[in-house]
Amino acid sequence: MNSEEFRQFGKRSVDYVADYLDNIRDRPVLAEVKPGYLHKLLPKEMPTTPDHWTQILPDVENLIMPGITHWHSPKFNAFYPTGSSYPSIIGEMLSAAIGCIGFNWMASPACTELEVIVLDWLAKALGLPECYLNTSDGPGGGIIQGSASEATLVALLVAKEKTVDYVKEFHPEKREADIKGRLVAYASDQSNSSVEKSSLHASITIRLLPADENGSLRGSTLVEAIDKDIKEGLIPCCVIATLGSTGTCAFDRLDELGVICNEKNIWLHVDAAYAGSACICPEYRQMLNGIQYADSFDINPHKWLLVNFDCSTMWFKDTTPLISAFSVDRIYLKHDHEKQNNLAPDFRHWQIPLGRRFRALKLWFTLRLYGLSGLQSHIRNQCSLAQYFETLVRNDALFEIVRPATLGLVCFRAKGEDSFSIQLLDRLNKDGNLYMVAAHVDGKYVLRYCVCSRLTEPNDVESSWALITKTARHLLKENEKAAKGVLFLGGESVSEKKSKTICTKDEHVKTE
Amino acid sequence: MNSEEFRQFGKRSVDYVADYLDNIRDRPVLAEVKPGYLHKLLPKEMPTTPDHWTQILPDVENLIMPGITHWHSPKFNAFYPTGSSYPSIIGEMLSAAIGCIGFNWMASPACTELEVIVLDWLAKALGLPECYLNTSDGPGGGIIQGSASEATLVALLVAKEKTVDYVKEFHPEKREADIKGRLVAYASDQSNSSVEKSSLHASITIRLLPADENGSLRGSTLVEAIDKDIKEGLIPCCVIATLGSTGTCAFDRLDELGVICNEKNIWLHVDAAYAGSACICPEYRQMLNGIQYADSFDINPHKWLLVNFDCSTMWFKDTTPLISAFSVDRIYLKHDHEKQNNLAPDFRHWQIPLGRRFRALKLWFTLRLYGLSGLQSHIRNQCSLAQYFETLVRNDALFEIVRPATLGLVCFRAKGEDSFSIQLLDRLNKDGNLYMVAAHVDGKYVLRYCVCSRLTEPNDVESSWALITKTARHLLKENEKAAKGVLFLGGESVSEKKSKTICTKDEHVKTE
Repeated sequence: MNSEEFRQFGKRSVDYVADYLDNIRDRPVLAEVKPGYLHKLLPKEMPTTPDHWTQILPDVENLIMPGITHWHSPKFNAFYPTGSSYPSIIGEMLSAAIGCIGFNWMASPACTELEVIVLDWLAKALGLPECYLNTSDGPGGGIIQGSASEATLVALLVAKEKTVDYVKEFHPEKREADIKGRLVAYASDQSNSSVEKSSLHASITIRLLPADENGSLRGSTLVEAIDKDIKEGLIPCCVIATLGSTGTCAFDRLDELGVICNEKNIWLHVDAAYAGSACICPEYRQMLNGIQYADSFDINPHKWLLVNFDCSTMWFKDTTPLISAFSVDRIYLKHDHEKQNNLAPDFRHWQIPLGRRFRALKLWFTLRLYGLSGLQSHIRNQCSLAQYFETLVRNDALFEIVRPATLGLVCFRAKGEDSFSIQLLDRLNKDGNLYMVAAHVDGKYVLRYCVCSRLTEPNDVESSWALITKTARHLLKENEKAAKGVLFLGGESVSEKKSKTICTKDEHVKTE
Repeated sequence: MNSEEFRQFGKRSVDYVADYLDNIRDRPVLAEVKPGYLHKLLPKEMPTTPDHWTQILPDVENLIMPGITHWHSPKFNAFYPTGSSYPSIIGEMLSAAIGCIGFNWMASPACTELEVIVLDWLAKALGLPECYLNTSDGPGGGIIQGSASEATLVALLVAKEKTVDYVKEFHPEKREADIKGRLVAYASDQSNSSVEKSSLHASITIRLLPADENGSLRGSTLVEAIDKDIKEGLIPCCVIATLGSTGTCAFDRLDELGVICNEKNIWLHVDAAYAGSACICPEYRQMLNGIQYADSFDINPHKWLLVNFDCSTMWFKDTTPLISAFSVDRIYLKHDHEKQNNLAPDFRHWQIPLGRRFRALKLWFTLRLYGLSGLQSHIRNQCSLAQYFETLVRNDALFEIVRPATLGLVCFRAKGEDSFSIQLLDRLNKDGNLYMVAAHVDGKYVLRYCVCSRLTEPNDVESSWALITKTARHLLKENEKAAKGVLFLGGESVSEKKSKTICTKDEHVKTE
């Protein structure tokens, strides 16, 4: 493909993208395909000679799109949002075209320096303390990581090395491996799965401590767990506090946890992957109460600040232990300016991989083309849409609110037994016109409705709610009919009968 | 920014990208900026109100481009190539626009299934054994990781857990932490810095064993190290074999290492980040001799198969230990099809982060629009350009070849003392019209000339060589003059004099 063909293909692709997002509501949000569908459609080997570029976009439309879950559709209300915006999409393309690998300053000064600058822009907009700024006098600073998982893993790894150093200071006779084998980390039982997974990767035992009735991990619970572990000869090493849990958008008590961590010299990492972005609005900034105690802090602009995945911004109060723990040098990585300085750090020391994309470009494009006011409007708009959804739920006697709208999330359920809400979610997702996931709250099964797409408008919320209530009422009727069938069949419902047959068939297949 | 503005901005950006790559030779390959240059040019805070999109591209050109090291310029001959091509750039843009997060099959079936399919396409093109295919009957398969570093870390982590299980089978009384503290990994002292760094992240002691005179790690060296460690009560756990070292493109003896690993139940990971791609050409496939012993294998299509970073393809012989070691579940991640099957795996279990971009799209675009023949031509063309460079070096009496062209890399130096080659590289890089990095071979300082850009043509190689020899001859004259100056000044050279002055000035500044 030469540059002339690229100009044609590229422009046609730009139109395809615009058309896709203009008309995204017309598609079912969930793919209507069965596992293995694409294997039947594509050849078993790559083509020997080049395909022509004009074949590609029709194939994307006809083969790929039927298997896409449309994360940017207003009908997507699962998990949390994943960011996307026009400026960010173009930033991603330009970053791919420049295609530099910014592992150190010399490998592309602009790649490092723009990251340093926009991380400071963002830190200021969030109201983070001065010590986290790259341009502060101290040893703190910010970097773009690939994901909140990576940020948590980096925090756990540096906490591990720092704790080993600290213990050896007082007990030089202790073996490093023995110390590492006794380390313990702590998080709430409401923390994201990635926190537990990172602790597995870091080979650190993690205690998922019980949250209180609001879903918050409290200082008293943490102290109790720490004291118990210390008595048993274990070594507390890291606390991962969650601001905005995945289940219900609950907040750990950072102010309480922070004091304890600082007193006991335990690394405090704050995972505010989704909720953190809201702090660009002053009215939400109180959720950062206690942030001054944190050693590291992470939010995902790729969740809620309209930047495409991956862009997880992480700030450290002190990057020194990070650099000293994980610096590995080779002659081919040396350059004249490698003496770390705040304006031109070698970011490779701050992250897991060596290579890194020019991700600051899409963040810069997004921050500039929305401006702080535009981003604040986006956050406030999504929060008000969630509040609107909550009102709709409250006005329907079939349903109840389990957690009022918190930022963009509402947790609700059908009144009565869990089984009906389970059945309802299953039917909604199978129909493919609304995608939600479930959570457990106080032992109950609840449905999470999250405002995810930047395109969502009040009438999308209304349509979603209309679909939910319509489906629920359909199901009620079906269940009533089935109940009558029970009477008719003498104690066995139609649906039980049906599932039994299927079971038998499955067992038959198994024993074949 | 609405979709109409996006159409305009996007199309103008497509032209900007095409113009950039059409005229990339006109720019100095290395940025002529000093650390902190961008801080002087950009505001200290993000704009309050949105900037207009028409301001962005001029700012990219005027503010960002002066700080870019142009990795796709034919004057970029450092490290190894980083991939880029028109199809891949467009694939990246479409992936950003679709913007799905494919952590499990349900989250976007096409995202997972296309990855399964193109990884099989690539495995077949490379001539990998059947057991690594996703569609094989066995438990093997392939996935896209972010980088070779991540692939190495995943291999080390799964090797660690597998070894713990194996040891506990025979010694159930042993504590997990004690076992983990005794694990040892092995690699060549020629392996990439990321291998050593991954071992730090995995908290596993690594032995960087001496390579032979060809830069290859041999079986006998490995056996000796293993035996010594076992005698000392340590537990060998993982071997990372390098195919195509960063310094000189040396190859470990996979056939010898593999037998030992399989005999002793040690995980064998093969890091073929750069060189592996060449195996799509049958004439290079002998470098995979012994691959049947490997537990995991990684190459970077984002290095040499024209795909943009990040796209590091990793294959496993058996993914079972991976899934069992790192599965963490939550109610919101459950879906109807999560029972792993070869055609629709939940890839989140195979990698470090939870989230994942639709990276298969750019790989698919590239494989289709080049075809196997186009990719083979690319590899062969770059190899023949390296051979051409070698011929030019051999025809100049001032220089010597240290390692003949191996794939796209030539290692050479100025005859005589190291100091002249050091001076030469320093001058070339400072002038900014050619970028190379150094290596050490047999205790000597050598220059690495690597054919990196897909745009490189024979006359680019000639221009680079002309610049190298011209600069060398200039330097010789300067040195001669300086030597005369020594006589004149009575034993002190002009350049020493000069640098002394600078030193004094620097010290002066420091003490201010």
